[in-house]
Amino acid sequence: MSYAASVVGGTGFTGGELLRLLEGHPEFDVVQATSRSQANKTIGSIHPNLRGTELRFSNPDDLESVDVLFACTPHGVSMERIDAFREVADTVVDLSADFRLPTEAQYDEWYDGHARPELLETAEYALPELNRENLPGAKLIASGGCNATAAILGLKPLFDAEILHGDERVVVDVKVGSSEGGAGGGAASSHPERSGVVRPYAPTGHRHEAEIEEYLGLSVSFTAHAVDMTRGAAATCHVYPEPPVSKSDLWKAYRGSYEEEPFVRLVAGGSGVYRYPEPKSVAASNFAEVGFELDPTNERIVVFSAIDNMMKGSAGQAVHAANIALGIDERAGLEFTGLHPVGAP
Amino acid sequence: MSYAASVVGGTGFTGGELLRLLEGHPEFDVVQATSRSQANKTIGSIHPNLRGTELRFSNPDDLESVDVLFACTPHGVSMERIDAFREVADTVVDLSADFRLPTEAQYDEWYDGHARPELLETAEYALPELNRENLPGAKLIASGGCNATAAILGLKPLFDAEILHGDERVVVDVKVGSSEGGAGGGAASSHPERSGVVRPYAPTGHRHEAEIEEYLGLSVSFTAHAVDMTRGAAATCHVYPEPPVSKSDLWKAYRGSYEEEPFVRLVAGGSGVYRYPEPKSVAASNFAEVGFELDPTNERIVVFSAIDNMMKGSAGQAVHAANIALGIDERAGLEFTGLHPVGAP
Amino acid sequence: MSYAASVVGGTGFTGGELLRLLEGHPEFDVVQATSRSQANKTIGSIHPNLRGTELRFSNPDDLESVDVLFACTPHGVSMERIDAFREVADTVVDLSADFRLPTEAQYDEWYDGHARPELLETAEYALPELNRENLPGAKLIASGGCNATAAILGLKPLFDAEILHGDERVVVDVKVGSSEGGAGGGAASSHPERSGVVRPYAPTGHRHEAEIEEYLGLSVSFTAHAVDMTRGAAATCHVYPEPPVSKSDLWKAYRGSYEEEPFVRLVAGGSGVYRYPEPKSVAASNFAEVGFELDPTNERIVVFSAIDNMMKGSAGQAVHAANIALGIDERAGLEFTGLHPVGAP
Amino acid sequence: MSYAASVVGGTGFTGGELLRLLEGHPEFDVVQATSRSQANKTIGSIHPNLRGTELRFSNPDDLESVDVLFACTPHGVSMERIDAFREVADTVVDLSADFRLPTEAQYDEWYDGHARPELLETAEYALPELNRENLPGAKLIASGGCNATAAILGLKPLFDAEILHGDERVVVDVKVGSSEGGAGGGAASSHPERSGVVRPYAPTGHRHEAEIEEYLGLSVSFTAHAVDMTRGAAATCHVYPEPPVSKSDLWKAYRGSYEEEPFVRLVAGGSGVYRYPEPKSVAASNFAEVGFELDPTNERIVVFSAIDNMMKGSAGQAVHAANIALGIDERAGLEFTGLHPVGAP
Repeated sequence: MSYAASVVGGTGFTGGELLRLLEGHPEFDVVQATSRSQANKTIGSIHPNLRGTELRFSNPDDLESVDVLFACTPHGVSMERIDAFREVADTVVDLSADFRLPTEAQYDEWYDGHARPELLETAEYALPELNRENLPGAKLIASGGCNATAAILGLKPLFDAEILHGDERVVVDVKVGSSEGGAGGGAASSHPERSGVVRPYAPTGHRHEAEIEEYLGLSVSFTAHAVDMTRGAAATCHVYPEPPVSKSDLWKAYRGSYEEEPFVRLVAGGSGVYRYPEPKSVAASNFAEVGFELDPTNERIVVFSAIDNMMKGSAGQAVHAANIALGIDERAGLEFTGLHPVGAP
Repeated sequence: MSYAASVVGGTGFTGGELLRLLEGHPEFDVVQATSRSQANKTIGSIHPNLRGTELRFSNPDDLESVDVLFACTPHGVSMERIDAFREVADTVVDLSADFRLPTEAQYDEWYDGHARPELLETAEYALPELNRENLPGAKLIASGGCNATAAILGLKPLFDAEILHGDERVVVDVKVGSSEGGAGGGAASSHPERSGVVRPYAPTGHRHEAEIEEYLGLSVSFTAHAVDMTRGAAATCHVYPEPPVSKSDLWKAYRGSYEEEPFVRLVAGGSGVYRYPEPKSVAASNFAEVGFELDPTNERIVVFSAIDNMMKGSAGQAVHAANIALGIDERAGLEFTGLHPVGAP
Repeated sequence: MSYAASVVGGTGFTGGELLRLLEGHPEFDVVQATSRSQANKTIGSIHPNLRGTELRFSNPDDLESVDVLFACTPHGVSMERIDAFREVADTVVDLSADFRLPTEAQYDEWYDGHARPELLETAEYALPELNRENLPGAKLIASGGCNATAAILGLKPLFDAEILHGDERVVVDVKVGSSEGGAGGGAASSHPERSGVVRPYAPTGHRHEAEIEEYLGLSVSFTAHAVDMTRGAAATCHVYPEPPVSKSDLWKAYRGSYEEEPFVRLVAGGSGVYRYPEPKSVAASNFAEVGFELDPTNERIVVFSAIDNMMKGSAGQAVHAANIALGIDERAGLEFTGLHPVGAP
Repeated sequence: MSYAASVVGGTGFTGGELLRLLEGHPEFDVVQATSRSQANKTIGSIHPNLRGTELRFSNPDDLESVDVLFACTPHGVSMERIDAFREVADTVVDLSADFRLPTEAQYDEWYDGHARPELLETAEYALPELNRENLPGAKLIASGGCNATAAILGLKPLFDAEILHGDERVVVDVKVGSSEGGAGGGAASSHPERSGVVRPYAPTGHRHEAEIEEYLGLSVSFTAHAVDMTRGAAATCHVYPEPPVSKSDLWKAYRGSYEEEPFVRLVAGGSGVYRYPEPKSVAASNFAEVGFELDPTNERIVVFSAIDNMMKGSAGQAVHAANIALGIDERAGLEFTGLHPVGAP
């Protein structure tokens, strides 16, 4: 059995990554990739790794009927076009933020309002490690955001184990790669200005705070920095549990939450170069690494989590969610294990 | 049908890359990976992308019987241990330079002599686009070197089309990533000294000249520079054909040589960001990109070729050769198409 | 008037940086640079930017008499050789951690004991923005550490303005370049493993916590990450003041502490690419940038500070301290203003 | 004595670099920096390293009278505004290509014609190591281009020593940093697409060929690649001399040409990490490094030269030329010796 799939917004980075994943997926056939500006051009003219693909971009006004439509359009577009998407596709997976929050009030607070607020309760947020059970059969899926995914994966076991309860002050200090800014570019992302940076790009008020609060139940103190990599998001969470916990409590918590998870690896200490989670270890893969250390002098837990923002943080997560929604093996099309060595991923 | 395979020298970069490829290969079962220094440790303790692998390194003195043994040891080791390798394995694929040249005289000239010169004529050099026909049934395979592969792939069509004859002066100006230096390290490859370089590391006399001369039939003027990437080798070849040729002659030559090749993509001009071969476009894949431009003012052909030195330049090429030797589909295990975007690959 | 100066340990990164600064300094003459392994070799053979220098390394057992000796030896060496240093030099500036803490008990706790604890109270810690008044006439100066400098400069105004009192939980999340690891190298700092990283290298228990606690009066929650730059240290401090403060309180605090400081620039908001402190903006200079943002949703202050760890974090700070100790203009030899654009600094 | 100077086009990379150099120069006072789009803004809002500068950008239509005007406008602007420039300034130094070639025919061939061809013979091309004698008293100076400077400095000694005569085939394979593309940006220079590249950006037909041919007297085979650094240009020249030469001939040639030059360092072999010229060794300085190796197997000379394209390749060269034109010490304001370590410069 094979599902017809389309990618709307195929020239962006997440669109390209989805096309790559879907072409290598045993259960999907890509029947359409749209782009208004590049219509009729080959996909390989934008995504050089896909030069072997015969498909060409087509106009987004001429959507074909498919089983699954993946929307990779900028924030704000899906909410405008959602009826057209749902008309041609039984299942819509949206990679933007347009359907990630459940209420209109949240969109008013964090974004600029919502064009179709009545659909918000219909959509299922997708971060499978958090809410896999909601996804089978879902028809409108809002794939979780990259920084939110990194933070939630790091902190979720502390809630599962009742080490955190939701009223703590937790610092989430995030470091992200340049692909998070998308394919457009601009002065701040030009190579001479962007290379080698440690640049505060969201000191406070990042919109992913809203997702974290909604789905983890914790209002975090979130700050994001741009660093010199292309792919990757790393979250360092600083947590002061009350009462204090032991390292074995932490191992128990993290193993309890993740030992059955196909895409989460626990990495905490050991020998060698790679002792904690880092983006290089998961680059090009759908894996997340999560680890922790205990600071005895101030009763602090430091939690590290690392993902490839293009994979576990967007395109990989969308395929993962679609797999579950359609009843396909979760791992299908997502088994690539990453690379070693790999430079700035 | 499935073949038992082992990797001798599993902690190095090529060893790790081979383990990754073999684990994802439909026809191979990895039954052993050796390391003297890391015996009994998990493979993931060295190669973080392979943390999901259960295999542990074992002592190289205790080789298991396999169908194919891949030797990833430093230059000079295979020639010493070749009998032990061939005793346990029907087919040996050596990734070092030990069996790449056909005569003892060449090893005396370019290396420090050879321990088992009588075996040199037994070995088959493997660069499938050049000599695929020699590989079926081969028992001792010497997988071609990275820089030689880049240069040969760039220039071969000019010989096929009789544009080059072997007595021309051809400059091969190569740019390589840091993984070519291997996992060892040293002052010159420490990050503060190595990052951001354009460093002449083999101004003249690089040993891959010997391979190029032997298999292409041309004594090239070879110079290699270290640049700031981890994976990748890019060769720029400057050729003055006599008589001069046209661009359509070149297209005809390159298409003639490569249009049936599963792992070669021709890229020459066009629009967009990626108009010529570059390592980013093939990073993490077994693809080579080859392209050219004609310089009307001096009747020069500039040929560009780009590979991932860990893949098409070593581990991927070894698997490709083994596939052909064993009669497996050439592409098996090597279909990963690369990434976009990707940083310093 | 000119002072004779020597650099003990001249082959390391801080030694080379000191030699560069002293050679360009209007009041110092470099009369000796020592290295046991490189004795008699030119300084330019190790530090390529100093190829124009005629001085050669000499044996550290043959120290010449100077006005000021700068010790750039690894931690633990100065405490062993301090008598020899003080015998030949009226003023000793030590760039290691050997004399930074005031009591033997602290060395027992954070290091491996101290060889000459009776000298600890003689030494003056040098971070001029913190304790300039202690430095005139000082004979044994312990130049402050890079990460401690970044953290202290960020937080000091909050103490000056009595916004912090010393019993708060403050997270200090630091990102550092590869030169902090020194010139030696090793597997973790080899280019293929180190490039593109966001790697937790001191999750907890970094020794600079001791300096911060001693001189700032605050036990911070310190975590350091290696990122892909050569020079630079950036500290992000997450602070929850009680009672909450306004942005104008913050401006008043930071201006009050730093508006007269020659090497501190306040950067907080504004337009353009560089809105907050970042290492690129101060690379190659002795300047520190400090800035902040207020998070209204959780009453948090986020403080950013950025330095070049080779300059304000080591060699520049040592020269700055020597200038003050000797009564020279503070800025002498340190006026280089940085570069734009600059890559991974 | 001090000269009033202005910078027209102060927001670009070369404009910013010039402002930095002029502010640190003992003989120049910067009285104006112009920018149409940023008029009235601080210089530090664009160039973060110049945040300590009080000057603000002013409108380019209101030029002040100065002794020297440096034009840092894009190619094509100076030729339109040259009368206005010369009206307010006794000496004009143009950093664009507008006055580098001596005849209208050359502009027709390599550019899009010239607006003021009658002025071409008035202008003096400035590459002091080549034609220092033309510069004293010059009123209209065309500062040499970055890639041309790298190539000419590498090859000039071979002409001086009559090893080259002008009719040879010489390959010039250049590797350049992202600042050569200027501050504007675009898809190809966005960080995700530009980082980690080895990208042929001028396979043939680069305009600097015209400068090289005009001033060196050799039609070179020029190819330029973008690599992952911000500053820097490295030229590798492959030369086949007839008759062949010895290494001592080469040393004699290069020493003969450069031993008195204040900004050229010969680097060819030796021990340590930095054995040949490379951009890291000269980053942030006005120095050029030049070196060579002899290839006995094909009677080839490989010449390496490296500069910081922002310094010796543009702003530094312009100041150097102005110093000579005005009779100031050549080295004034240009003595910074570079950095070690330095990342991607």
